[in-house]
Amino acid sequence: MSQMIKPQLPKGMRDFLPADVLRRQYVIDTISAVFQRYGYEPLQTPVMELNSTLMGKYGEDAEKLIFHAKHPQGDEDLALRYDLTVPLVRAYAQNEAKIALPFKRYQIAPVWRAERPQRGRFREFYQCDADTVGITSMDADAEAVSVAVTALRALGFTDFAVKINNRKLLKGIGEYAGLTGDALANLYRSIDKLDKIGVDGVREEMAKGGIDAAVIDKIMELITSARKENNLSYVAAHASIGTLREILDSNDDAMQGLSELEQLVRYLQALNVPEQNIDLDFSMVRGLSYYTGPIFEAVLLSDDPEERVGSIAGGGRYDDLIGLFRKESLATVGISLGIERLITIMDKRNMYPASLNRTVVQALVTVFSPEIRAESMKLASELRAAGINVELFMQDNKKLGQQFGYADKKGIPVVAVLGPDEVANGQVKLKRLADQHEVTVAHAEAITTLRGLLA
Amino acid sequence: MSQMIKPQLPKGMRDFLPADVLRRQYVIDTISAVFQRYGYEPLQTPVMELNSTLMGKYGEDAEKLIFHAKHPQGDEDLALRYDLTVPLVRAYAQNEAKIALPFKRYQIAPVWRAERPQRGRFREFYQCDADTVGITSMDADAEAVSVAVTALRALGFTDFAVKINNRKLLKGIGEYAGLTGDALANLYRSIDKLDKIGVDGVREEMAKGGIDAAVIDKIMELITSARKENNLSYVAAHASIGTLREILDSNDDAMQGLSELEQLVRYLQALNVPEQNIDLDFSMVRGLSYYTGPIFEAVLLSDDPEERVGSIAGGGRYDDLIGLFRKESLATVGISLGIERLITIMDKRNMYPASLNRTVVQALVTVFSPEIRAESMKLASELRAAGINVELFMQDNKKLGQQFGYADKKGIPVVAVLGPDEVANGQVKLKRLADQHEVTVAHAEAITTLRGLLA
Repeated sequence: MSQMIKPQLPKGMRDFLPADVLRRQYVIDTISAVFQRYGYEPLQTPVMELNSTLMGKYGEDAEKLIFHAKHPQGDEDLALRYDLTVPLVRAYAQNEAKIALPFKRYQIAPVWRAERPQRGRFREFYQCDADTVGITSMDADAEAVSVAVTALRALGFTDFAVKINNRKLLKGIGEYAGLTGDALANLYRSIDKLDKIGVDGVREEMAKGGIDAAVIDKIMELITSARKENNLSYVAAHASIGTLREILDSNDDAMQGLSELEQLVRYLQALNVPEQNIDLDFSMVRGLSYYTGPIFEAVLLSDDPEERVGSIAGGGRYDDLIGLFRKESLATVGISLGIERLITIMDKRNMYPASLNRTVVQALVTVFSPEIRAESMKLASELRAAGINVELFMQDNKKLGQQFGYADKKGIPVVAVLGPDEVANGQVKLKRLADQHEVTVAHAEAITTLRGLLA
Repeated sequence: MSQMIKPQLPKGMRDFLPADVLRRQYVIDTISAVFQRYGYEPLQTPVMELNSTLMGKYGEDAEKLIFHAKHPQGDEDLALRYDLTVPLVRAYAQNEAKIALPFKRYQIAPVWRAERPQRGRFREFYQCDADTVGITSMDADAEAVSVAVTALRALGFTDFAVKINNRKLLKGIGEYAGLTGDALANLYRSIDKLDKIGVDGVREEMAKGGIDAAVIDKIMELITSARKENNLSYVAAHASIGTLREILDSNDDAMQGLSELEQLVRYLQALNVPEQNIDLDFSMVRGLSYYTGPIFEAVLLSDDPEERVGSIAGGGRYDDLIGLFRKESLATVGISLGIERLITIMDKRNMYPASLNRTVVQALVTVFSPEIRAESMKLASELRAAGINVELFMQDNKKLGQQFGYADKKGIPVVAVLGPDEVANGQVKLKRLADQHEVTVAHAEAITTLRGLLA
């Protein structure tokens, strides 16, 4: 064994102590339950993939952030997963003989990116994805948006909007304005900055990109047309789509994008998605190059600058990605909840249920003295057998007061005392620390009474 | 994006499809619940540790199996965790200001070892550990054994025994026989092979190690003395301890080991641990060098050669390990359940509850035609809002028969039908596939009826 070394975490990585884990697990369990309610099934892929599976999928800048792994006998070049999407399409293509379509899967798991460490940015962080493989119709897109809205609401969020747009429409708008190829890609990049640099900033960017002032006017009017409505309602969404339909009716891409949007909005209505959480936004682009149709991005509608965390969910349709791993591609659409950002906001707003404690322990069984320790052990076993989470006090020769102090420090709600009197009388003393409520009951009634104190 | 490539997993790594995940999650949830019932709290450490944290802790042979990781800007040498024990002691030492003692923690998470791939051996596999930091008395050891027995029984195992021994006793036996230093280490290695090579094999090994025939006799008699009792009971355990006490009363190490064992056995009795699951075995060694006191190892008592999977749990006291990361060490004891082996046996014996389905979906809501799809969407939303896991059929223009076939293939228990008649009459038809039981009820009663069909 080696010399003493300073205990240290890798940069950008975290230990989650029990109270942290319990909060994170509450969030994960809540989202999982909603995913399952929509019929998404859990999939688990390994932490490492072959290097060749990941490289060439995310663009050069992203690729620089991938962690590579090897072992001393080094027979394979491996990499830690960068997201859950490429592993999904690899796993689907590899296991398709065993999978019925549509394949609705979710995965909530860590990914690794060697970002420059800074506040709120981690090198190991969780992603939380639900995707549907094998459906071309807007049914799958509508469920992706609906499941995200339901999950966010289940966590207690109401002040958010899922912006919805369509890549085909964006392409159509560019074509309508006379742009193709690189100019089109530049257009996306400029529009994508709208929230950061404002309308004038985007105009300037476009002008730098060599787009005529008249064309810029045209584009800006189109992409901000839905924004002008400035209220989140299905009526407004349909009206915005109608307006663009009239202007863009000569462009096939735009018309197909608008048809998809219209269908999607109708399905969201049929699925009872609250309209105050839906926002048609023709200026929303999303960075990833692989999207092919509808795109989604949820933002918090908060005026608190500390809550400006960027998007809290995002996704869209990427019908070509599985084609990287099989001869024919398959329609795929998904949504990803920004679980780390959600947890940050939930911590700040204290959005956890009162019943969520910082310890799993429901009762501490104290030990009066070594001589009657066996009595305490017996009680602990009985309570555990009844399904109650019990810690049996372990340190020897601590006074009861110290044991109560320990329970208080750890946040254990109830303390059980078995002193010589209680043992002699076949009784147990139970005390709830929050309100100092104390009862002494017959040993046989301890389980029922304890359950009552915890309720 | 790159050319099409063959979808492929790294060697020794696995995808878990939904039905696999549901089974594994059942096992993990069952064990977690038992760990929590004993007051162990969840801890999460990162998948990667600094290389310097892991190296020098496991011995040379083990170190060769560690996966190393780096990213292109490579500012740190990282390694994927090899077990959950070294990360625990690193995390404790690093966070001790925030942690009250005793620190009872559990972690159920994957680890990575570059073993030569073979049937039933994986390079990514789960470990499942519960440990107590900060307790020198046998309380912590007794809880470690007790929680393992309770967890195994909660999974449905009854035909197993937790072998118990003590490193101090083994050392004392060696000393009593006149062995020290390397000869003592060789002795452990020889005894460790008892199950594989038998009594004669071990004698031969010892003889090769230069131990006198008379000494060998002495040792073999001592280490097999508990085995001779050949029944698992607390009376037999105490008798075996008593026998050794008389023989070894001049050796301090042995006497301390025996005192610990006696205390431990008494505590197990007080904790109501079933005696048929406890087996004192003075010949049990356990490989790891860091154990300092009691050691445990659970084996399946099965005659089926296919079920000879080796130990299904193991652990012990390792009071010196935390001293690698802080000035003074702290008493620590833990147990690790061999969750991958347990799952293998559970799959073979089909030990899962009948209620555990291969899909999360409880009901498929069919779509009769595109025209009345909105009615099906509405029903799906209502059922989901009531907490029922619902898949809404997504492919267009499939006949009802095909939709029923899909439900059957996926194992979805109930199918809901909303045809033109049902819609016109404000009704829903519900069919349970297992027994073909079919009812048509008013739309408002669909939730209650569906719950009944699922019960």
